[in-house]
Amino acid sequence: PAGDRGTAPIRLEPREDLSLPGRLADSAAAKHGRHLHDTAEVTAWLGGRARAHRYQVERIPITELDGWSTHPETGNLAHRSGKFFTIEGLDVTVDGGSPRSYRHWQQPIIVQPEVGILGILVKEFDGVLHCLLQAKMEPGNPEPLQLSPTVQATHSNYTGVHNGASVPYLEYFLDPGRGKVIADVLQSEHGSWFSRKVNRNMIIEVDEEVPPRADFCWLTLGQVGDLLWQDNVVNMDTRTVLACAPASVAEPGALHSDAEVLSWFTAERSRYDVAARHIPLADVTDWSSDEWAIRHARDWYFQVVAVSVRADRREVARWSQPLIEPIRLGLIAFVLRQIAGVPHLLVHARAEGGFRNGVEMGPTVQLTPQYHELDGSPRSRFLDLVLDAAPERVRYTSVQSEEGGRLLNAENRYLIVEADESQAPLRPPEGYLWVTPSQLGSLLRHGHYVNIQARTLLAAIHTGAVRLYD
Amino acid sequence: PAGDRGTAPIRLEPREDLSLPGRLADSAAAKHGRHLHDTAEVTAWLGGRARAHRYQVERIPITELDGWSTHPETGNLAHRSGKFFTIEGLDVTVDGGSPRSYRHWQQPIIVQPEVGILGILVKEFDGVLHCLLQAKMEPGNPEPLQLSPTVQATHSNYTGVHNGASVPYLEYFLDPGRGKVIADVLQSEHGSWFSRKVNRNMIIEVDEEVPPRADFCWLTLGQVGDLLWQDNVVNMDTRTVLACAPASVAEPGALHSDAEVLSWFTAERSRYDVAARHIPLADVTDWSSDEWAIRHARDWYFQVVAVSVRADRREVARWSQPLIEPIRLGLIAFVLRQIAGVPHLLVHARAEGGFRNGVEMGPTVQLTPQYHELDGSPRSRFLDLVLDAAPERVRYTSVQSEEGGRLLNAENRYLIVEADESQAPLRPPEGYLWVTPSQLGSLLRHGHYVNIQARTLLAAIHTGAVRLYD
Repeated sequence: PAGDRGTAPIRLEPREDLSLPGRLADSAAAKHGRHLHDTAEVTAWLGGRARAHRYQVERIPITELDGWSTHPETGNLAHRSGKFFTIEGLDVTVDGGSPRSYRHWQQPIIVQPEVGILGILVKEFDGVLHCLLQAKMEPGNPEPLQLSPTVQATHSNYTGVHNGASVPYLEYFLDPGRGKVIADVLQSEHGSWFSRKVNRNMIIEVDEEVPPRADFCWLTLGQVGDLLWQDNVVNMDTRTVLACAPASVAEPGALHSDAEVLSWFTAERSRYDVAARHIPLADVTDWSSDEWAIRHARDWYFQVVAVSVRADRREVARWSQPLIEPIRLGLIAFVLRQIAGVPHLLVHARAEGGFRNGVEMGPTVQLTPQYHELDGSPRSRFLDLVLDAAPERVRYTSVQSEEGGRLLNAENRYLIVEADESQAPLRPPEGYLWVTPSQLGSLLRHGHYVNIQARTLLAAIHTGAVRLYD
Repeated sequence: PAGDRGTAPIRLEPREDLSLPGRLADSAAAKHGRHLHDTAEVTAWLGGRARAHRYQVERIPITELDGWSTHPETGNLAHRSGKFFTIEGLDVTVDGGSPRSYRHWQQPIIVQPEVGILGILVKEFDGVLHCLLQAKMEPGNPEPLQLSPTVQATHSNYTGVHNGASVPYLEYFLDPGRGKVIADVLQSEHGSWFSRKVNRNMIIEVDEEVPPRADFCWLTLGQVGDLLWQDNVVNMDTRTVLACAPASVAEPGALHSDAEVLSWFTAERSRYDVAARHIPLADVTDWSSDEWAIRHARDWYFQVVAVSVRADRREVARWSQPLIEPIRLGLIAFVLRQIAGVPHLLVHARAEGGFRNGVEMGPTVQLTPQYHELDGSPRSRFLDLVLDAAPERVRYTSVQSEEGGRLLNAENRYLIVEADESQAPLRPPEGYLWVTPSQLGSLLRHGHYVNIQARTLLAAIHTGAVRLYD
């Protein structure tokens, strides 16, 4: 907005666009789009795109990866270009200030220092905001073709390391001044699988005409919300970007003021000493490798595998790469309560080895139910509440897969479960706090507060998949 | 505020305390306090405290440090308890995406992973907020006795590693629920001297009676503002905590909306690849050590030295420790412009080796003027503007010392200098942006946005040392 100081007076901007929450809410309420009318039409279109593309994902021995090699000394897995990502070892110590909270372990981890762009272009049609989404294949997704953001680009994508075709619509995100910035924030990925990885989550609104290319479609937030009731249709990157939309609802108050929420979180982050350092993959205790996989001694957690991919519409038509494949389905849930008429979610301060700042707020429950019985990891206080919830208490449920470019069949069941005082008291155990979705929305303007699992559930709220404010 | 759900209805809190900015402004406008009337009286009181204490700081050979030793292989300097801090080596690569912005160097660095508490207790007297400050000796301060926060405690202080006396008033900060949280946020220290160091900056308001102990006094923000015109009276920890006070002024707008400011900063943080890794101090290129100091080959930047301290009122009466001693006076300045009647500061996105998230917003100018001519480090575009400013353009100036517990005679000249379009255009060079003090205030509720040098200048604004909104 800043012009040079010439003859024209300087115009100041309002600090906040006060119309935005209302416009986002209108889009979330719009279950029919201007371009693809309803969910059935979106599903049919997505099916058509899937038929139009040929792709094939095949497991191969790690030794047959093309362009990737295992370092003879460290055992680290890396691409010959030095780009993309590496698989290394991580040594993690988490010390929460008590013997019960002390843990030390080693594991393989994905190291990808560069910042990728996840960007959604939005535009009003007939006064309603629509998002430009792409039917995009990711090799690790159980349903390979899902709805991705307008742009999903690693730094390598747009600087040419892929030797691939240019990324459509990237120009709007490399120069946000072409449109109006709705959100632009660095957010973490899974702290258990990625070391210190961040992506730039962007939403840019444009007025100009933007013709959708093949594989792209305009959908309202409400349409995305309907699709979030289906398993594995809306990909993880779309979910995290939409969680960063500045959706907020006028609330009469909250159980804790924003200052108290920040103070609680600061205390939690101070309480934990999280020390994570890269070590040679070959040195990781309890993990070993063979021709087909790098795996845990007891086949727990995940394995590192290799795939060969053929696709006709990706930047590169054929490639091979390692992926991390979790062994079991995870469980992710927010416990919800209406407190004095205002919905609150029970967040949990979590230390994960891959977080840049040690601790982020996660959902109430985030775990793979089988493991705590095996490895002694903490059993969530709220696991039974979620597992045993009566159907009428389940406000949201679906199975969603995580980042399909790095993870293979990484699926979680996501739930929002309503509870009462006897199950989830207003004074929760240490490490938990009741906050409103709007408070989390304010925090999501900033990075490293809300983890990616919680962001998927917030995307379900922001898109009206679950309506908390009836 | 959350009680158990009993018979009483649950009371929600407003998310924001809307009375707070006004109450902080009233305190900044109050130049006379309830307890010590004016600056002369504070100065007299501080002089009295200085006379009441005996302390002696003496340089000693590094080899004569008591309890500290140099590791025979790494050369790292550490305390035998494994606590406090260590002096190690740091290898830093900063890549801003262009050959001009690429730098690589090695240096000694202070490593102190634990989170300290810097806390100020505030309380209304006659309706005006006063801060409880302490006359405290720090061995590295050029004026050893300065006004520190109510509590200035490392983790070692309050867990007993010092074997020292308990820290007065600490209970208010270990249990913020005893009062009302005004601010509670983790903020960085100097990225050139500390590796990934953060402190918990807290302001807690109480209603109850709090008798000031010897060495403590209640001052209004306005009294602190007056003292900030004097050199080396208000210590660095007090300045950073007061910068985090949620002071804001109703402004008709800003040159850039908050969303644009965040987007600009996200782009800057994405643009820089900052890789910093600890290395053995003995391996640091261009640095060497003798009996008295670890110093740069050309005596640039700083040296690591040792001091022996005797004090009668500290937790421990006698100790010795290493300190980092900068060679020259630094220069820190914000360039200020009134834009359409609203004051704006020109912030600079800075990559420093010790930052946890690579990049923070610093003042317009932050450098030691001599070095860029010697070592080729970037010369600030705005250095001449600051050095040559006419006296009527200088809205604030003083010399302040930095953290006296780790740094010896680390002094900077701090300035706020008003400029016009010809000197500082509305469209500044890459890496700079015009933001309002209130916008910076909003960012300071969160960590890792605004660096410690900028926070000293914001403390001068928040305390009314410089009035920008006449």
